Amino acid sequence: MPLPIKIVFLGTSASSPTKERNLPSVAVEYEGSTYLFDCGEGTQRQLMQNSISPQKIKAIFITHMHGDHVIGVAGLIRTLALNKRTDPLEIFVPEGEEKKLMPLITFDKAFINYKIIIKGVRAGVAMKGRGFSVHAFKLMHSVPTYGYSFQEEGRVRFDHEKCKKLGIKGSMYSEIEKKGRIRVEGKAVSLKSVAKELKGRKIVYATDTRPTKTTSKISENAELLIHEATYADEFQELAKQRLHSTASEAAEVAKRGKAKMLIIFHMSARYKSPSALLKEARKVFKNTEAAYDGMVITL
Amino acid sequence: MPLPIKIVFLGTSASSPTKERNLPSVAVEYEGSTYLFDCGEGTQRQLMQNSISPQKIKAIFITHMHGDHVIGVAGLIRTLALNKRTDPLEIFVPEGEEKKLMPLITFDKAFINYKIIIKGVRAGVAMKGRGFSVHAFKLMHSVPTYGYSFQEEGRVRFDHEKCKKLGIKGSMYSEIEKKGRIRVEGKAVSLKSVAKELKGRKIVYATDTRPTKTTSKISENAELLIHEATYADEFQELAKQRLHSTASEAAEVAKRGKAKMLIIFHMSARYKSPSALLKEARKVFKNTEAAYDGMVITL
Repeated sequence: MPLPIKIVFLGTSASSPTKERNLPSVAVEYEGSTYLFDCGEGTQRQLMQNSISPQKIKAIFITHMHGDHVIGVAGLIRTLALNKRTDPLEIFVPEGEEKKLMPLITFDKAFINYKIIIKGVRAGVAMKGRGFSVHAFKLMHSVPTYGYSFQEEGRVRFDHEKCKKLGIKGSMYSEIEKKGRIRVEGKAVSLKSVAKELKGRKIVYATDTRPTKTTSKISENAELLIHEATYADEFQELAKQRLHSTASEAAEVAKRGKAKMLIIFHMSARYKSPSALLKEARKVFKNTEAAYDGMVITL
Repeated sequence: MPLPIKIVFLGTSASSPTKERNLPSVAVEYEGSTYLFDCGEGTQRQLMQNSISPQKIKAIFITHMHGDHVIGVAGLIRTLALNKRTDPLEIFVPEGEEKKLMPLITFDKAFINYKIIIKGVRAGVAMKGRGFSVHAFKLMHSVPTYGYSFQEEGRVRFDHEKCKKLGIKGSMYSEIEKKGRIRVEGKAVSLKSVAKELKGRKIVYATDTRPTKTTSKISENAELLIHEATYADEFQELAKQRLHSTASEAAEVAKRGKAKMLIIFHMSARYKSPSALLKEARKVFKNTEAAYDGMVITL
Protein backbone atom coordinates (compact mmCIF):
# COMPACT_ATOMS: atom_id res chain seq x y z
CA MET A 1 0.00 0.00 0.00
CA PRO A 2 1.37 3.45 -0.85
CA LEU A 3 1.59 5.90 2.02
CA PRO A 4 -1.36 8.24 2.26
CA ILE A 5 -0.92 11.80 1.03
CA LYS A 6 -3.31 14.11 2.87
CA ILE A 7 -4.20 17.48 1.36
CA VAL A 8 -5.90 19.98 3.68
CA PHE A 9 -7.36 23.25 2.41
CA LEU A 10 -6.58 25.81 5.11
CA GLY A 11 -7.71 28.90 3.21
CA THR A 12 -9.58 29.19 -0.07
CA SER A 13 -10.51 32.85 -0.57
CA ALA A 14 -9.00 35.40 -2.96
CA SER A 15 -7.49 38.77 -1.93
CA SER A 16 -9.46 39.23 1.30
CA PRO A 17 -10.99 36.73 3.68
CA THR A 18 -14.72 36.16 4.17
CA LYS A 19 -16.65 34.84 7.16
CA GLU A 20 -16.35 31.35 5.70
CA ARG A 21 -13.01 31.46 3.88
CA ASN A 22 -9.53 32.32 5.07
CA LEU A 23 -6.74 33.53 2.81
CA PRO A 24 -4.91 30.97 0.62
CA SER A 25 -2.97 28.09 2.10
CA VAL A 26 -2.92 24.38 1.36
CA ALA A 27 -1.15 21.79 3.50
CA VAL A 28 0.23 18.55 2.11
CA GLU A 29 0.96 15.94 4.77
CA TYR A 30 3.33 13.19 3.76
CA GLU A 31 5.35 10.72 5.85
CA GLY A 32 4.84 12.66 9.09
CA SER A 33 5.86 16.04 7.68
CA THR A 34 3.81 18.93 6.42
CA TYR A 35 4.47 21.13 3.38
CA LEU A 36 2.56 24.39 3.07
CA PHE A 37 1.66 25.99 -0.23
CA ASP A 38 1.12 29.71 0.33
CA CYS A 39 0.56 31.11 3.79
CA GLY A 40 -2.08 33.84 3.94
CA GLU A 41 -2.91 35.75 7.12
CA GLY A 42 -4.44 33.47 9.75
CA THR A 43 -2.86 30.26 8.45
CA GLN A 44 -1.40 29.38 11.88
CA ARG A 45 -4.88 29.37 13.38
CA GLN A 46 -6.28 27.35 10.46
CA LEU A 47 -3.57 24.76 11.18
CA MET A 48 -4.88 24.53 14.75
CA GLN A 49 -8.49 24.28 13.59
CA ASN A 50 -7.45 21.34 11.43
CA SER A 51 -5.26 19.71 14.10
CA ILE A 52 -2.04 20.03 12.14
CA SER A 53 0.99 20.69 14.32
CA PRO A 54 2.88 23.73 13.01
CA GLN A 55 6.06 22.09 14.28
CA LYS A 56 5.73 19.44 11.56
CA ILE A 57 6.02 22.00 8.80
CA LYS A 58 9.24 21.34 6.92
CA ALA A 59 8.88 23.90 4.14
CA ILE A 60 6.61 26.66 2.86
CA PHE A 61 6.23 27.25 -0.88
CA ILE A 62 5.09 30.77 -1.73
CA THR A 63 3.64 31.31 -5.21
CA HIS A 64 4.15 35.08 -5.25
CA MET A 65 4.74 37.98 -2.94
CA HIS A 66 1.29 39.54 -2.83
CA GLY A 67 0.37 40.10 0.82
CA ASP A 68 -2.68 37.84 0.85
CA HIS A 69 -0.48 34.82 0.03
CA VAL A 70 2.34 35.48 2.44
CA ILE A 71 1.42 37.60 5.50
CA GLY A 72 0.70 34.45 7.52
CA VAL A 73 4.43 33.69 7.55
CA ALA A 74 4.95 36.55 10.04
CA GLY A 75 2.79 35.07 12.80
CA LEU A 76 3.59 31.44 12.07
CA ILE A 77 7.34 31.80 12.42
CA ARG A 78 6.91 33.64 15.76
CA THR A 79 4.65 30.92 17.14
CA LEU A 80 7.19 28.29 16.07
CA ALA A 81 9.86 30.21 18.00
CA LEU A 82 7.62 30.44 21.09
CA ASN A 83 7.13 26.69 20.84
CA LYS A 84 10.91 26.23 20.91
CA ARG A 85 11.39 24.90 17.39
CA THR A 86 14.95 23.94 16.63
CA ASP A 87 14.56 22.43 13.13
CA PRO A 88 15.33 24.80 10.28
CA LEU A 89 12.42 26.02 8.17
CA GLU A 90 12.75 26.44 4.42
CA ILE A 91 10.68 29.07 2.67
CA PHE A 92 10.62 29.08 -1.12
CA VAL A 93 9.75 32.25 -3.05
CA PRO A 94 10.18 33.26 -6.69
CA GLU A 95 13.80 34.00 -7.50
CA GLY A 96 14.56 37.69 -7.03
CA GLU A 97 11.85 38.13 -4.40
CA GLU A 98 13.82 36.73 -1.47
CA LYS A 99 14.42 40.13 0.14
CA LYS A 100 10.75 41.04 0.15
CA LEU A 101 10.08 38.36 2.73
CA MET A 102 12.62 39.70 5.21
CA PRO A 103 10.56 42.63 6.60
CA LEU A 104 7.87 40.17 7.77
CA ILE A 105 10.52 38.24 9.68
CA THR A 106 12.50 41.09 11.19
CA PHE A 107 10.16 44.09 11.64
CA ASP A 108 9.81 43.81 15.43
CA LYS A 109 13.20 42.21 16.09
CA ALA A 110 11.51 39.09 17.42
CA PHE A 111 13.84 36.42 18.74
CA ILE A 112 13.71 33.54 16.26
CA ASN A 113 15.66 30.64 17.73
CA TYR A 114 15.86 28.41 14.65
CA LYS A 115 17.12 28.87 11.12
CA ILE A 116 14.87 30.28 8.44
CA ILE A 117 16.27 29.53 5.02
CA ILE A 118 14.78 31.57 2.20
CA LYS A 119 15.34 30.06 -1.23
CA GLY A 120 14.58 31.59 -4.60
CA VAL A 121 12.97 29.18 -7.07
CA ARG A 122 12.91 29.09 -10.81
CA ALA A 123 11.40 26.50 -13.13
CA GLY A 124 12.63 23.04 -12.13
CA VAL A 125 13.17 21.06 -8.98
CA ALA A 126 12.76 23.32 -5.94
CA MET A 127 13.22 20.69 -3.23
CA LYS A 128 14.05 17.01 -3.00
CA GLY A 129 12.71 15.09 -0.02
CA ARG A 130 12.66 11.42 0.94
CA GLY A 131 10.54 9.76 -1.72
CA PHE A 132 9.28 12.94 -3.34
CA SER A 133 10.27 16.23 -4.91
CA VAL A 134 8.62 19.60 -5.36
CA HIS A 135 8.91 21.21 -8.78
CA ALA A 136 8.31 24.87 -9.55
CA PHE A 137 6.83 26.11 -12.82
CA LYS A 138 6.22 29.60 -14.12
CA LEU A 139 2.72 31.05 -13.95
CA MET A 140 1.28 34.15 -15.62
CA HIS A 141 0.42 36.91 -13.14
CA SER A 142 1.22 40.59 -12.51
CA VAL A 143 4.33 39.78 -10.44
CA PRO A 144 6.82 36.85 -10.62
CA THR A 145 4.70 33.81 -9.76
CA TYR A 146 5.38 30.08 -9.65
CA GLY A 147 3.11 27.11 -9.29
CA TYR A 148 4.34 23.96 -7.57
CA SER A 149 3.90 20.27 -8.14
CA PHE A 150 4.42 17.78 -5.37
CA GLN A 151 5.67 14.62 -7.09
CA GLU A 152 6.10 11.32 -5.38
CA GLU A 153 8.82 9.07 -6.74
CA GLY A 154 7.82 5.82 -8.36
CA ARG A 155 8.00 2.78 -6.09
CA VAL A 156 8.67 -0.88 -6.70
CA ARG A 157 6.50 -3.51 -5.03
CA PHE A 158 8.10 -6.95 -5.00
CA ASP A 159 6.20 -10.21 -5.21
CA HIS A 160 8.04 -11.66 -2.22
CA GLU A 161 6.77 -15.19 -2.74
CA LYS A 162 8.13 -15.24 -6.29
CA CYS A 163 11.41 -13.70 -5.18
CA LYS A 164 11.84 -16.30 -2.45
CA LYS A 165 11.26 -19.12 -4.93
CA LEU A 166 13.89 -17.70 -7.27
CA GLY A 167 16.41 -17.27 -4.45
CA ILE A 168 16.41 -13.45 -4.32
CA LYS A 169 17.40 -12.19 -0.89
CA GLY A 170 19.23 -9.47 1.06
CA SER A 171 21.07 -6.88 -1.01
CA MET A 172 19.85 -8.54 -4.20
CA TYR A 173 16.60 -6.62 -3.81
CA SER A 174 18.29 -3.24 -4.10
CA GLU A 175 20.53 -4.54 -6.87
CA ILE A 176 17.67 -5.69 -9.07
CA GLU A 177 15.77 -2.48 -8.35
CA LYS A 178 18.75 -0.42 -9.41
CA LYS A 179 19.85 -2.42 -12.47
CA GLY A 180 16.49 -3.73 -13.69
CA ARG A 181 17.83 -7.29 -13.91
CA ILE A 182 20.27 -9.60 -12.11
CA ARG A 183 21.54 -13.13 -12.37
CA VAL A 184 20.43 -15.47 -9.61
CA GLU A 185 22.08 -18.85 -9.46
CA GLY A 186 23.16 -18.42 -13.08
CA LYS A 187 19.68 -17.47 -14.25
CA ALA A 188 18.70 -14.00 -15.54
CA VAL A 189 15.81 -12.43 -13.62
CA SER A 190 14.20 -9.18 -14.72
CA LEU A 191 12.71 -6.67 -12.27
CA LYS A 192 9.42 -6.73 -14.19
CA SER A 193 9.02 -10.45 -13.66
CA VAL A 194 9.21 -10.19 -9.84
CA ALA A 195 7.86 -6.73 -9.08
CA LYS A 196 5.22 -4.19 -10.00
CA GLU A 197 6.16 -0.62 -10.58
CA LEU A 198 3.87 1.78 -8.71
CA LYS A 199 3.81 5.22 -10.27
CA GLY A 200 4.32 8.18 -7.94
CA ARG A 201 1.37 10.45 -7.28
CA LYS A 202 1.32 14.08 -8.30
CA ILE A 203 -0.45 17.12 -6.90
CA VAL A 204 -0.29 20.40 -8.79
CA TYR A 205 -0.93 23.79 -7.18
CA ALA A 206 -1.45 26.78 -9.50
CA THR A 207 -2.42 30.27 -8.27
CA ASP A 208 -2.57 33.25 -9.08
CA THR A 209 -2.49 32.91 -12.84
CA ARG A 210 -4.05 32.99 -16.26
CA PRO A 211 -4.54 29.48 -17.66
CA THR A 212 -1.26 28.32 -19.22
CA LYS A 213 -0.02 25.46 -21.38
CA THR A 214 2.75 24.82 -18.86
CA THR A 215 0.21 24.17 -16.11
CA SER A 216 -1.62 21.70 -18.37
CA LYS A 217 1.60 19.92 -19.20
CA ILE A 218 2.66 19.68 -15.54
CA SER A 219 -0.81 18.37 -14.70
CA GLU A 220 -0.53 15.34 -16.97
CA ASN A 221 -1.85 12.37 -15.03
CA ALA A 222 -1.83 14.35 -11.80
CA GLU A 223 -4.08 12.91 -9.15
CA LEU A 224 -5.07 16.45 -8.31
CA LEU A 225 -4.84 19.84 -9.94
CA ILE A 226 -5.59 22.66 -7.51
CA HIS A 227 -6.21 25.69 -9.73
CA GLU A 228 -7.42 29.17 -8.98
CA ALA A 229 -10.86 30.17 -10.28
CA THR A 230 -11.23 33.73 -9.14
CA TYR A 231 -14.18 34.57 -11.39
CA ALA A 232 -17.19 33.15 -13.20
CA ASP A 233 -17.25 33.27 -17.01
CA GLU A 234 -19.14 36.56 -17.14
CA PHE A 235 -16.01 38.26 -15.77
CA GLN A 236 -13.60 36.78 -18.31
CA GLU A 237 -12.42 40.23 -19.40
CA LEU A 238 -11.71 41.14 -15.78
CA ALA A 239 -9.85 37.84 -15.35
CA LYS A 240 -7.67 38.68 -18.36
CA GLN A 241 -7.06 42.19 -17.14
CA ARG A 242 -6.13 41.14 -13.60
CA LEU A 243 -4.28 38.01 -14.72
CA HIS A 244 -6.55 35.53 -13.00
CA SER A 245 -8.63 32.61 -14.31
CA THR A 246 -12.32 31.90 -14.65
CA ALA A 247 -13.75 28.58 -13.49
CA SER A 248 -14.08 27.20 -17.02
CA GLU A 249 -10.55 28.31 -17.88
CA ALA A 250 -9.29 26.34 -14.87
CA ALA A 251 -11.30 23.37 -16.16
CA GLU A 252 -9.73 23.72 -19.62
CA VAL A 253 -6.28 23.45 -18.03
CA ALA A 254 -7.32 20.24 -16.25
CA LYS A 255 -8.88 18.83 -19.43
CA ARG A 256 -5.89 19.54 -21.65
CA GLY A 257 -3.53 18.12 -19.06
CA LYS A 258 -5.70 15.04 -18.46
CA ALA A 259 -5.53 15.58 -14.71
CA LYS A 260 -7.58 13.04 -12.79
CA MET A 261 -9.35 15.59 -10.62
CA LEU A 262 -9.64 19.36 -10.44
CA ILE A 263 -10.22 21.40 -7.30
CA ILE A 264 -11.08 25.03 -7.94
CA PHE A 265 -10.19 27.48 -5.19
CA HIS A 266 -9.16 31.11 -4.65
CA MET A 267 -12.68 32.26 -5.41
CA SER A 268 -13.49 35.97 -5.30
CA ALA A 269 -15.23 37.07 -2.08
CA ARG A 270 -18.22 38.09 -4.24
CA TYR A 271 -19.24 34.42 -4.49
CA LYS A 272 -21.04 33.48 -1.31
CA SER A 273 -21.49 29.98 -2.75
CA PRO A 274 -19.19 28.36 -5.31
CA SER A 275 -22.09 26.60 -7.09
CA ALA A 276 -22.09 28.86 -10.17
CA LEU A 277 -18.34 28.45 -10.60
CA LEU A 278 -18.59 24.71 -10.09
CA LYS A 279 -21.32 24.40 -12.70
CA GLU A 280 -19.28 26.27 -15.29
CA ALA A 281 -16.16 24.23 -14.58
CA ARG A 282 -17.97 20.89 -14.70
CA LYS A 283 -19.32 21.65 -18.17
CA VAL A 284 -15.69 21.51 -19.33
CA PHE A 285 -14.18 19.02 -16.89
CA LYS A 286 -16.57 16.74 -15.05
CA ASN A 287 -14.45 15.63 -12.12
CA THR A 288 -14.27 19.06 -10.50
CA GLU A 289 -14.91 20.00 -6.90
CA ALA A 290 -14.87 23.39 -5.20
CA ALA A 291 -12.58 23.78 -2.22
CA TYR A 292 -13.83 24.95 1.16
CA ASP A 293 -11.85 25.71 4.31
CA GLY A 294 -11.21 22.45 6.13
CA MET A 295 -11.70 20.28 3.02
CA VAL A 296 -9.51 17.17 3.21
CA ILE A 297 -8.51 14.91 0.34
CA THR A 298 -6.58 11.74 1.03
CA LEU A 299 -4.81 10.03 -1.84
CA MET B 1 -29.99 59.04 27.02
CA PRO B 2 -26.25 58.83 26.41
CA LEU B 3 -25.19 57.22 23.15
CA PRO B 4 -24.30 53.55 23.46
CA ILE B 5 -20.64 52.60 23.54
CA LYS B 6 -20.17 49.07 22.22
CA ILE B 7 -17.05 47.14 23.10
CA VAL B 8 -16.35 43.99 21.05
CA PHE B 9 -13.57 41.57 21.95
CA LEU B 10 -12.12 40.41 18.62
CA GLY B 11 -9.15 38.51 20.00
CA THR B 12 -8.31 37.55 23.57
CA SER B 13 -5.30 35.22 23.49
CA ALA B 14 -1.70 35.93 24.45
CA SER B 15 1.33 35.44 22.16
CA SER B 16 -0.16 32.79 19.90
CA PRO B 17 -3.74 32.04 18.94
CA THR B 18 -5.71 28.98 20.03
CA LYS B 19 -8.64 27.20 18.40
CA GLU B 20 -11.00 29.38 20.43
CA ARG B 21 -9.06 32.63 20.78
CA ASN B 22 -7.55 34.95 18.20
CA LEU B 23 -4.68 37.34 18.88
CA PRO B 24 -5.43 40.59 20.76
CA SER B 25 -7.77 43.21 19.41
CA VAL B 26 -10.66 45.11 20.96
CA ALA B 27 -13.07 47.29 18.98
CA VAL B 28 -14.85 50.28 20.51
CA GLU B 29 -17.84 51.45 18.48
CA TYR B 30 -18.99 54.99 19.17
CA GLU B 31 -21.19 57.33 17.13
CA GLY B 32 -20.94 55.25 13.95
CA SER B 33 -17.15 54.95 14.01
CA THR B 34 -14.91 52.15 15.21
CA TYR B 35 -11.65 52.45 17.14
CA LEU B 36 -9.38 49.41 17.35
CA PHE B 37 -7.08 48.69 20.26
CA ASP B 38 -4.28 46.42 19.04
CA CYS B 39 -4.59 44.48 15.83
CA GLY B 40 -3.22 40.92 16.04
CA GLU B 41 -3.07 38.59 13.06
CA GLY B 42 -6.54 37.68 11.81
CA THR B 43 -8.26 40.81 13.14
CA GLN B 44 -9.80 41.63 9.76
CA ARG B 45 -11.58 38.31 9.72
CA GLN B 46 -12.72 38.72 13.34
CA LEU B 47 -14.28 42.05 12.32
CA MET B 48 -16.26 40.17 9.66
CA GLN B 49 -17.29 37.46 12.11
CA ASN B 50 -18.63 40.19 14.37
CA SER B 51 -20.29 42.17 11.55
CA ILE B 52 -18.14 45.27 12.02
CA SER B 53 -17.36 47.04 8.75
CA PRO B 54 -13.59 47.60 8.49
CA GLN B 55 -14.36 50.79 6.55
CA LYS B 56 -15.74 52.34 9.75
CA ILE B 57 -12.39 52.10 11.50
CA LYS B 58 -11.14 55.61 12.13
CA ALA B 59 -8.02 54.81 14.14
CA ILE B 60 -5.95 51.91 15.48
CA PHE B 61 -4.16 52.20 18.82
CA ILE B 62 -1.21 49.83 19.16
CA THR B 63 0.07 49.18 22.69
CA HIS B 64 3.48 47.92 21.62
CA MET B 65 5.30 46.55 18.63
CA HIS B 66 5.40 42.85 19.46
CA GLY B 67 4.19 40.95 16.41
CA ASP B 68 1.17 39.34 18.07
CA HIS B 69 -0.35 42.80 18.71
CA VAL B 70 0.29 44.34 15.32
CA ILE B 71 0.64 41.86 12.43
CA GLY B 72 -3.08 42.19 11.65
CA VAL B 73 -2.43 45.72 10.40
CA ALA B 74 -0.73 44.28 7.30
CA GLY B 75 -3.80 42.44 6.00
CA LEU B 76 -6.37 44.94 7.22
CA ILE B 77 -4.89 47.93 5.39
CA ARG B 78 -4.71 45.93 2.14
CA THR B 79 -8.34 44.88 2.39
CA LEU B 80 -9.33 48.51 3.04
CA ALA B 81 -7.48 49.47 -0.15
CA LEU B 82 -9.22 46.70 -2.15
CA ASN B 83 -12.52 48.04 -0.84
CA LYS B 84 -11.62 51.48 -2.20
CA ARG B 85 -11.28 53.34 1.07
CA THR B 86 -10.57 57.03 0.66
CA ASP B 87 -10.69 58.20 4.30
CA PRO B 88 -7.31 58.46 6.00
CA LEU B 89 -6.47 55.92 8.69
CA GLU B 90 -4.59 56.91 11.82
CA ILE B 91 -2.38 54.35 13.53
CA PHE B 92 -0.96 55.21 16.95
CA VAL B 93 2.17 53.47 18.23
CA PRO B 94 4.56 54.25 21.09
CA GLU B 95 6.76 57.22 20.26
CA GLY B 96 10.02 56.10 18.68
CA GLU B 97 8.45 52.93 17.23
CA GLU B 98 6.83 54.57 14.21
CA LYS B 99 9.35 53.16 11.72
CA LYS B 100 8.86 49.59 12.88
CA LEU B 101 5.34 49.61 11.46
CA MET B 102 6.45 50.59 7.96
CA PRO B 103 7.73 47.16 6.81
CA LEU B 104 4.24 45.69 7.35
CA ILE B 105 2.79 48.38 5.12
CA THR B 106 5.36 48.44 2.32
CA PHE B 107 6.95 44.97 2.07
CA ASP B 108 5.14 43.87 -1.11
CA LYS B 109 4.72 47.36 -2.60
CA ALA B 110 0.95 46.98 -2.40
CA PHE B 111 -1.03 49.89 -3.81
CA ILE B 112 -2.64 51.68 -0.85
CA ASN B 113 -4.98 54.32 -2.21
CA TYR B 114 -5.66 56.25 1.01
CA LYS B 115 -3.51 57.97 3.57
CA ILE B 116 -2.06 56.03 6.50
CA ILE B 117 -0.94 58.40 9.21
CA ILE B 118 1.36 56.87 11.81
CA LYS B 119 1.55 58.84 15.02
CA GLY B 120 3.87 58.29 17.96
CA VAL B 121 2.17 58.59 21.36
CA ARG B 122 3.50 59.45 24.78
CA ALA B 123 1.62 59.89 28.04
CA GLY B 124 -1.29 62.29 27.52
CA VAL B 125 -4.01 62.89 24.95
CA ALA B 126 -3.35 60.81 21.84
CA MET B 127 -6.46 61.74 19.89
CA LYS B 128 -9.42 64.06 20.25
CA GLY B 129 -12.66 63.08 18.56
CA ARG B 130 -16.18 64.48 18.61
CA GLY B 131 -17.36 64.04 22.20
CA PHE B 132 -14.43 61.90 23.33
CA SER B 133 -10.70 61.64 23.55
CA VAL B 134 -8.19 58.78 23.77
CA HIS B 135 -5.43 59.13 26.35
CA ALA B 136 -2.20 57.14 26.37
CA PHE B 137 -0.43 56.08 29.57
CA LYS B 138 2.85 54.29 30.12
CA LEU B 139 2.82 50.58 30.93
CA MET B 140 5.59 48.34 32.20
CA HIS B 141 6.73 45.75 29.64
CA SER B 142 9.92 44.62 27.91
CA VAL B 143 9.55 47.17 25.07
CA PRO B 144 7.97 50.66 25.01
CA THR B 145 4.29 50.02 25.76
CA TYR B 146 1.28 52.28 26.30
CA GLY B 147 -2.20 51.60 27.57
CA TYR B 148 -5.12 53.67 26.32
CA SER B 149 -8.24 55.10 27.89
CA PHE B 150 -11.24 56.02 25.81
CA GLN B 151 -12.84 58.92 27.64
CA GLU B 152 -16.16 60.39 26.74
CA GLU B 153 -16.60 64.08 27.49
CA GLY B 154 -19.09 65.08 30.12
CA ARG B 155 -22.48 66.11 28.81
CA VAL B 156 -25.08 68.54 30.05
CA ARG B 157 -28.76 67.55 30.09
CA PHE B 158 -31.10 70.53 30.31
CA ASP B 159 -34.47 70.52 32.07
CA HIS B 160 -36.22 72.05 29.10
CA GLU B 161 -39.44 72.78 30.96
CA LYS B 162 -37.59 74.77 33.59
CA CYS B 163 -35.55 76.57 30.94
CA LYS B 164 -38.69 77.54 29.01
CA LYS B 165 -40.31 78.97 32.17
CA LEU B 166 -37.21 81.07 32.85
CA GLY B 167 -37.07 82.33 29.25
CA ILE B 168 -33.89 80.51 28.16
CA LYS B 169 -33.85 79.94 24.40
CA GLY B 170 -31.67 79.77 21.27
CA SER B 171 -28.01 80.58 21.75
CA MET B 172 -28.56 81.10 25.47
CA TYR B 173 -28.25 77.30 25.88
CA SER B 174 -24.67 77.21 24.63
CA GLU B 175 -23.89 80.41 26.54
CA ILE B 176 -24.99 79.03 29.90
CA GLU B 177 -23.26 75.71 29.16
CA LYS B 178 -20.03 77.54 28.42
CA LYS B 179 -20.10 80.13 31.20
CA GLY B 180 -21.87 78.20 33.93
CA ARG B 181 -24.35 81.05 34.53
CA ILE B 182 -26.13 83.82 32.57
CA ARG B 183 -28.56 86.64 33.24
CA VAL B 184 -32.05 86.15 31.81
CA GLU B 185 -34.34 89.17 31.95
CA GLY B 186 -32.13 90.68 34.61
CA LYS B 187 -32.12 87.53 36.76
CA ALA B 188 -29.02 85.35 37.35
CA VAL B 189 -29.52 81.69 36.37
CA SER B 190 -26.92 79.03 37.15
CA LEU B 191 -26.33 76.01 34.90
CA LYS B 192 -26.76 73.73 37.89
CA SER B 193 -30.28 75.01 38.52
CA VAL B 194 -31.50 74.16 35.00
CA ALA B 195 -29.37 71.17 33.96
CA LYS B 196 -27.80 67.96 35.15
CA GLU B 197 -24.21 67.21 34.38
CA LEU B 198 -23.73 63.69 32.98
CA LYS B 199 -20.24 62.39 33.49
CA GLY B 200 -18.51 60.91 30.49
CA ARG B 201 -17.86 57.20 30.46
CA LYS B 202 -14.38 55.73 30.50
CA ILE B 203 -12.92 52.48 29.16
CA VAL B 204 -9.34 51.60 30.01
CA TYR B 205 -7.25 49.12 27.99
CA ALA B 206 -4.00 47.89 29.53
CA THR B 207 -1.81 45.17 27.96
CA ASP B 208 1.01 43.88 28.03
CA THR B 209 2.18 44.98 31.44
CA ARG B 210 3.00 44.43 35.06
CA PRO B 211 0.34 45.93 37.37
CA THR B 212 1.07 49.65 37.81
CA LYS B 213 -0.14 52.53 39.94
CA THR B 214 -0.68 54.59 36.80
CA THR B 215 -3.15 52.07 35.47
CA SER B 216 -5.04 52.14 38.78
CA LYS B 217 -5.15 55.91 38.73
CA ILE B 218 -6.36 56.06 35.12
CA SER B 219 -9.01 53.46 35.98
CA GLU B 220 -10.66 55.63 38.65
CA ASN B 221 -14.40 55.37 38.13
CA ALA B 222 -13.91 53.73 34.75
CA GLU B 223 -16.95 51.81 33.57
CA LEU B 224 -14.57 49.19 32.34
CA LEU B 225 -10.96 48.20 32.88
CA ILE B 226 -9.73 45.71 30.31
CA HIS B 227 -6.50 44.33 31.79
CA GLU B 228 -4.21 41.53 30.75
CA ALA B 229 -4.07 38.43 32.95
CA THR B 230 -1.58 36.22 31.21
CA TYR B 231 -1.03 33.85 34.14
CA ALA B 232 -2.62 32.34 37.23
CA ASP B 233 -1.10 33.14 40.63
CA GLU B 234 1.11 30.05 40.66
CA PHE B 235 3.13 31.64 37.85
CA GLN B 236 3.68 34.98 39.56
CA GLU B 237 7.44 34.68 39.25
CA LEU B 238 7.12 34.04 35.53
CA ALA B 239 4.77 37.04 35.26
CA LYS B 240 7.38 39.24 36.93
CA GLN B 241 10.14 37.88 34.77
CA ARG B 242 8.24 38.31 31.50
CA LEU B 243 6.64 41.58 32.56
CA HIS B 244 3.06 40.34 32.48
CA SER B 245 0.33 40.21 35.15
CA THR B 246 -1.44 37.44 37.00
CA ALA B 247 -5.22 37.43 37.30
CA SER B 248 -5.20 38.62 40.89
CA GLU B 249 -2.68 41.35 40.08
CA ALA B 250 -5.06 42.63 37.40
CA ALA B 251 -7.83 42.55 40.01
CA GLU B 252 -5.67 44.56 42.44
CA VAL B 253 -5.31 47.26 39.80
CA ALA B 254 -9.10 47.42 39.37
CA LYS B 255 -9.66 47.45 43.15
CA ARG B 256 -7.17 50.23 43.83
CA GLY B 257 -8.55 52.30 40.96
CA LYS B 258 -12.17 51.69 41.98
CA ALA B 259 -13.06 50.70 38.44
CA LYS B 260 -16.68 49.61 38.12
CA MET B 261 -15.92 46.44 36.21
CA LEU B 262 -12.86 44.41 35.24
CA ILE B 263 -12.49 42.26 32.15
CA ILE B 264 -9.45 40.03 32.17
CA PHE B 265 -8.07 39.03 28.79
CA HIS B 266 -4.80 38.12 27.04
CA MET B 267 -4.73 34.78 28.77
CA SER B 268 -1.89 32.36 28.09
CA ALA B 269 -2.77 29.62 25.60
CA ARG B 270 -2.12 27.08 28.40
CA TYR B 271 -5.54 27.94 29.90
CA LYS B 272 -8.15 26.05 27.95
CA SER B 273 -10.78 27.59 30.25
CA PRO B 274 -10.40 30.90 32.08
CA SER B 275 -12.25 29.65 35.18
CA ALA B 276 -9.15 29.36 37.39
CA LEU B 277 -8.02 32.88 36.47
CA LEU B 278 -11.51 34.24 37.00
CA LYS B 279 -11.76 32.64 40.43
CA GLU B 280 -8.46 34.17 41.54
CA ALA B 281 -9.38 37.62 40.22
CA ARG B 282 -12.84 37.60 41.82
CA LYS B 283 -11.34 36.92 45.23
CA VAL B 284 -9.76 40.37 44.95
CA PHE B 285 -12.29 42.22 42.81
CA LYS B 286 -15.78 40.76 42.59
CA ASN B 287 -17.11 42.39 39.44
CA THR B 288 -14.71 40.60 37.12
CA GLU B 289 -15.48 38.77 33.89
CA ALA B 290 -13.19 36.85 31.56
CA ALA B 291 -13.20 37.95 27.93
CA TYR B 292 -13.89 35.55 25.08
CA ASP B 293 -13.75 36.14 21.34
CA GLY B 294 -17.00 37.73 20.25
CA MET B 295 -17.87 39.05 23.76
CA VAL B 296 -19.85 42.28 23.51
CA ILE B 297 -20.35 44.85 26.26
CA THR B 298 -22.66 47.77 25.67
CA LEU B 299 -22.43 50.75 28.00
